[in-house]
Amino acid sequence: MDEFEIISRYFVEPIGYSREHVLVGPGDDCAVAKVPDGFELCVSTDTLIEDVHFPKDAAGDVVVSRALGANLSDLAAMGAEPYGFTLALTLPSYSDSWLSSFSTRLNELVKHYKLPLLGGNLARGQLSVTINIMGLVPHGQALLRSGAGSGDDIYVTGHLGNAAGGLAIVKGEVDADCTELVESYFSPVPRILLGQQLRNVASAVIDISDGFAADLGHLCKASGCGARVSLESIPVSEALKDLFGSEIAQSMAVKGGDDYELCFTVPTRNADVIAQLIRDQEVLVSHVGKIRPELDVEIIDAKGVRISGQSGYVHF
Amino acid sequence: MDEFEIISRYFVEPIGYSREHVLVGPGDDCAVAKVPDGFELCVSTDTLIEDVHFPKDAAGDVVVSRALGANLSDLAAMGAEPYGFTLALTLPSYSDSWLSSFSTRLNELVKHYKLPLLGGNLARGQLSVTINIMGLVPHGQALLRSGAGSGDDIYVTGHLGNAAGGLAIVKGEVDADCTELVESYFSPVPRILLGQQLRNVASAVIDISDGFAADLGHLCKASGCGARVSLESIPVSEALKDLFGSEIAQSMAVKGGDDYELCFTVPTRNADVIAQLIRDQEVLVSHVGKIRPELDVEIIDAKGVRISGQSGYVHF
Repeated sequence: MDEFEIISRYFVEPIGYSREHVLVGPGDDCAVAKVPDGFELCVSTDTLIEDVHFPKDAAGDVVVSRALGANLSDLAAMGAEPYGFTLALTLPSYSDSWLSSFSTRLNELVKHYKLPLLGGNLARGQLSVTINIMGLVPHGQALLRSGAGSGDDIYVTGHLGNAAGGLAIVKGEVDADCTELVESYFSPVPRILLGQQLRNVASAVIDISDGFAADLGHLCKASGCGARVSLESIPVSEALKDLFGSEIAQSMAVKGGDDYELCFTVPTRNADVIAQLIRDQEVLVSHVGKIRPELDVEIIDAKGVRISGQSGYVHF
Repeated sequence: MDEFEIISRYFVEPIGYSREHVLVGPGDDCAVAKVPDGFELCVSTDTLIEDVHFPKDAAGDVVVSRALGANLSDLAAMGAEPYGFTLALTLPSYSDSWLSSFSTRLNELVKHYKLPLLGGNLARGQLSVTINIMGLVPHGQALLRSGAGSGDDIYVTGHLGNAAGGLAIVKGEVDADCTELVESYFSPVPRILLGQQLRNVASAVIDISDGFAADLGHLCKASGCGARVSLESIPVSEALKDLFGSEIAQSMAVKGGDDYELCFTVPTRNADVIAQLIRDQEVLVSHVGKIRPELDVEIIDAKGVRISGQSGYVHF
């Protein structure tokens, strides 16, 4: 089977979802797409590699859920609406079952997020998935990391550390069968709608991919400020506490990667707006601390003892 | 050295070239860019993998020249102006000399083609480069593969087969030292300006990446027609003939991949326009045949014998 047949069988036909702005889809030298007047384009790219970002022999649906979830999470953190993506897939060999699982799940996600596939590339090599994702934001409304100011409140979505707990299960480091945690790792849910609702409300937004402490550190660095966070207020799931105990669970919530939740700051003048927005949300939103002028990120436990934040995963 | 330091040292600072439309560059969750009213976005992605698309132990400047050249060639084939790109780089290990060579050459190309780097990703794994490239075309003027009509003249740019000759030298299949051929393979020159000049002139355009016969076949298939080409009229360089003899050189011109030249069709009503355009070009443009209603691509040698076209590289 040559790559043109694979592309046609698993990608062009099953992933035929399109939108009005896609004037030319996959198949020409480039796709051609319109960007509506008054909108700006948000662009990000992310590669997931076997044995680094997902386990060896992971099923196709798991790989694509993680890859697309991670990329969509970047759009969420800009307050952007999904616009389209390209997919560069590298496979060690042809496998119908793997490709079927990958493209069936991809088709579900494409429809759910209204995210047309604009083009792609297929080559032979170590299993990896590179997605280039694009979103739209109204002019001037992109949510950056750099807008936080002293006194702003800090919030996070969801339960942190669940993905790290799921990874520990998947790697066999703990002997447990907890769907909630494994799903958090395998199928992260990008906070696309909340991201859009935070436009003109939040002062800074980042998604939590490297770990809460590391990513809050990135937000603070970009904003030229620091943060003070109460360890007790960081949302930790019962499942994570049951499996690892409260102390380790809290540590995983602070340092664990791959959560793809949002961390955002809100000026006190928007306190009422955010309170209403949080009441209307289906997703958990927790207040965890305050931005302050001192440059470091301080995490304080119930006894007032300072816990040092750790940086995230290091590749080299 | 962690990946943030590598990104900062080799990519964010040296590749600082920006344009007015880049509102937020690399460093946030996404880049943010404006698309001018009346223009459409052309999007394509291409992965190059060590030992498949470039030789093992190739220098960084060679790898980036081939990767960016191949991607820019897709923009050329749409008649698009470069707009921006993202870069997903996977490296087996940290090497200052390789990364310096890669980023120095990247910086040259970025400035030459006015192509800002919008973001990227760095991970550890088998050496590969995935570029997602974007270009702009005025509304409705993208050059597709599907517009060719019976009677249209077929043209190609440059000397075909040179990259295949260069690859044979690089792989040590022939013992020669011919810079012209090796450069064609290592540093393809995308025909960006000519592509833009072909707007409203050519009826269909494709870039020659899989080999002339295969790519003309793709153009014909998309246009619902066929082609008749004279083998003698396919431009073959003296260097290629000297090294391989006329017959093998012609065969390489027909079937060899990686040329990144343009193949395009022009309706006879535009004969005067294209004649003038060809006279004004610095790049060689050759008339090689005609589009016809019969669906196959026929290549005829000087004796009137039909040479069968071969398809290009097959990955799986």
